[in-house]
Amino acid sequence: MKLVVAPNALKGSLSPFEAATAIANGARRARPDAEVVEVPIADGGDGTAEVVGKARSADFREASALDPRGRPRRARYAWLEDGTAIIDVATASGLALLTENERSATLATSFGTGQVLRAALEAGAQRVVLGVGGSATVDGGAGVLQALGVRFLDDAGRELPPGGSALARLARIDSSGLTPLARHVPIEVACDVDSALLGEQGAARLFAPQKGGSASDVEDLERALTRLADVVERDFGRDVRTMTSGGAAGGIAAGLHGVLGARLMAGVDWVLDAVGFDQALAGAALCLTAEGQLDSQSLRNKGPWGVARRAAAHGVPVVVLGGSIGADVRTGDFADFTAWFSICQRPVLLEEALTHAATLLEAASEQVVRLFVAAATSAKPEPPESRA
Amino acid sequence: MKLVVAPNALKGSLSPFEAATAIANGARRARPDAEVVEVPIADGGDGTAEVVGKARSADFREASALDPRGRPRRARYAWLEDGTAIIDVATASGLALLTENERSATLATSFGTGQVLRAALEAGAQRVVLGVGGSATVDGGAGVLQALGVRFLDDAGRELPPGGSALARLARIDSSGLTPLARHVPIEVACDVDSALLGEQGAARLFAPQKGGSASDVEDLERALTRLADVVERDFGRDVRTMTSGGAAGGIAAGLHGVLGARLMAGVDWVLDAVGFDQALAGAALCLTAEGQLDSQSLRNKGPWGVARRAAAHGVPVVVLGGSIGADVRTGDFADFTAWFSICQRPVLLEEALTHAATLLEAASEQVVRLFVAAATSAKPEPPESRA
Repeated sequence: MKLVVAPNALKGSLSPFEAATAIANGARRARPDAEVVEVPIADGGDGTAEVVGKARSADFREASALDPRGRPRRARYAWLEDGTAIIDVATASGLALLTENERSATLATSFGTGQVLRAALEAGAQRVVLGVGGSATVDGGAGVLQALGVRFLDDAGRELPPGGSALARLARIDSSGLTPLARHVPIEVACDVDSALLGEQGAARLFAPQKGGSASDVEDLERALTRLADVVERDFGRDVRTMTSGGAAGGIAAGLHGVLGARLMAGVDWVLDAVGFDQALAGAALCLTAEGQLDSQSLRNKGPWGVARRAAAHGVPVVVLGGSIGADVRTGDFADFTAWFSICQRPVLLEEALTHAATLLEAASEQVVRLFVAAATSAKPEPPESRA
Repeated sequence: MKLVVAPNALKGSLSPFEAATAIANGARRARPDAEVVEVPIADGGDGTAEVVGKARSADFREASALDPRGRPRRARYAWLEDGTAIIDVATASGLALLTENERSATLATSFGTGQVLRAALEAGAQRVVLGVGGSATVDGGAGVLQALGVRFLDDAGRELPPGGSALARLARIDSSGLTPLARHVPIEVACDVDSALLGEQGAARLFAPQKGGSASDVEDLERALTRLADVVERDFGRDVRTMTSGGAAGGIAAGLHGVLGARLMAGVDWVLDAVGFDQALAGAALCLTAEGQLDSQSLRNKGPWGVARRAAAHGVPVVVLGGSIGADVRTGDFADFTAWFSICQRPVLLEEALTHAATLLEAASEQVVRLFVAAATSAKPEPPESRA
């Protein structure tokens, strides 16, 4: 019996690799002779470079970069044999790099991600994939572009300071200083959400609050990003206001598409292709995936949902294990999941579930596989016709 | 596809009937064409008379009785067509009848249960089954026996006051006043635990604390029950110290066996026979059971474990849904369960899980049946040999 184990990270507790190990251990406890294939996944969010890089035996390289508040750090990225560089926005510009007090939706800059991108280009990358997700920024990618040589100017021709709110004073984008490498090497963006740049579900209104934005910050940022979109359309001829995934990573996706023409991709589909998920799925009896929280957001291109759609297309049952199953998870919309179970084994506090996530995930996986095997082996096919 | 739904009560939230409804609803949502057979169960504990009574179309009767602290109440019991009366100790002598402050392991008396038993005998019962479990008492059944006419005397020949601790002064048991009906009508005790009267796992040490007994109360009660066992052996020739299930319901099981020769039975097996569980199981694809808390205590003749043993014997997979799955639940000992799942869908407080138990149980049941059906229908039997 072949079992495919393809979890996302469980944010705040387990990496996709740790989650895969836990699920695989549980599956093997339930069925010691199973062929268990571990395919840790990501969806363009934090961990994309690691997941794809490890699956593809990448080199990992480092570059110097400034964090979202301008402090120097080293940022790691993956380098595939074919010259593709995979860079996670979260590595240089991630929310996880800041303490609660350091967060600032209005001031945080994605400049560091641009530095890593530039380093990869200068090292000879033939293609760059940017995994966006987990960013601390709402700057519409202005920081990334500044690091590549683009200037964001006010109406006095002065360069704008870092951060999203300054874009409210944007008068002109001068791309004459853009490094030529960025014009010739394909840059693609693996997006972890399908949200647009602007509007109720956009980079400011939906995501800025968790990046430290107050209610008035959110509206300031919405105006600033609107201004950015207006100028981008005027100067580059691309409307990035409502395009799918333009709001990913505080609008980095929209900014890179608008100014550089970068292609935006659904992160999970790109990752699943890159790690060979369909090949792993061939001949599988069951696929197990996992996520920290399963809820209606999960249907917006999150990892397990991408896994479920492919498993369903291949006719492989797929079970998702969640740290938390939201009250909005109902059969209809989630029908590509065969079933879902929480890893919580009793009433517990969130803190406890996070601390013991590996143990709980392993236990839940064991039970799912036990039930699956019992059902599969107790199924009594119709007896063959008796032979004369 | 036939599904058997056989839950215990989920203590503090759902009766076995409510639990069965919730599980059946979830199962039908997953598989609308399933034949779902509801067999609510009990294990000798609270709810036994209702469960067996309803399954057997019993009459329900009432008798006057004193509660564990001596206050009058009406107590309901079941009367089967064959003249069997089924009486739950919990109805007249239950812990649930008392507030936290009213609990007293040392003073609470099972006298009320004896009154109901006597009323049933006087109404012409041909057989009495006492479902013990959920009692507030640790009186070794002295109260039940007193209501039937037995006298518990100190060495001055004075009758002892109610409650377990007074048994420390027991000198003699005078059964000359025992109602003759209790000698001629079989009295059987359906026990919800296998604990002995005395010792570390006994009626005092294991159960008195939850009945309001302090540490010193527990040791006083251990001495009092030891005295009771000594006198019973001397006066009635039966050693009730360590017999299986003697400690059930604060020793009511031991007392009734010792003085009346009552037969002690594993409650769950008696209930499963009485409700026709094996017949329900015939041809079932899956059995679902449930319990408030699944833990190592569950293996001591609790309802779901009885269900699991029979299902395993019939080759029917059995899944238990628990409000809480204890950390001590491990595959080895619990191997007759195919799998277990908590109804908790995310980190929650106990209070919330209790309040929403029906919804959570229904949701968990739906997922289990979805997975089961997917596994059973995706199982690909070996292709038949090709025919020449």
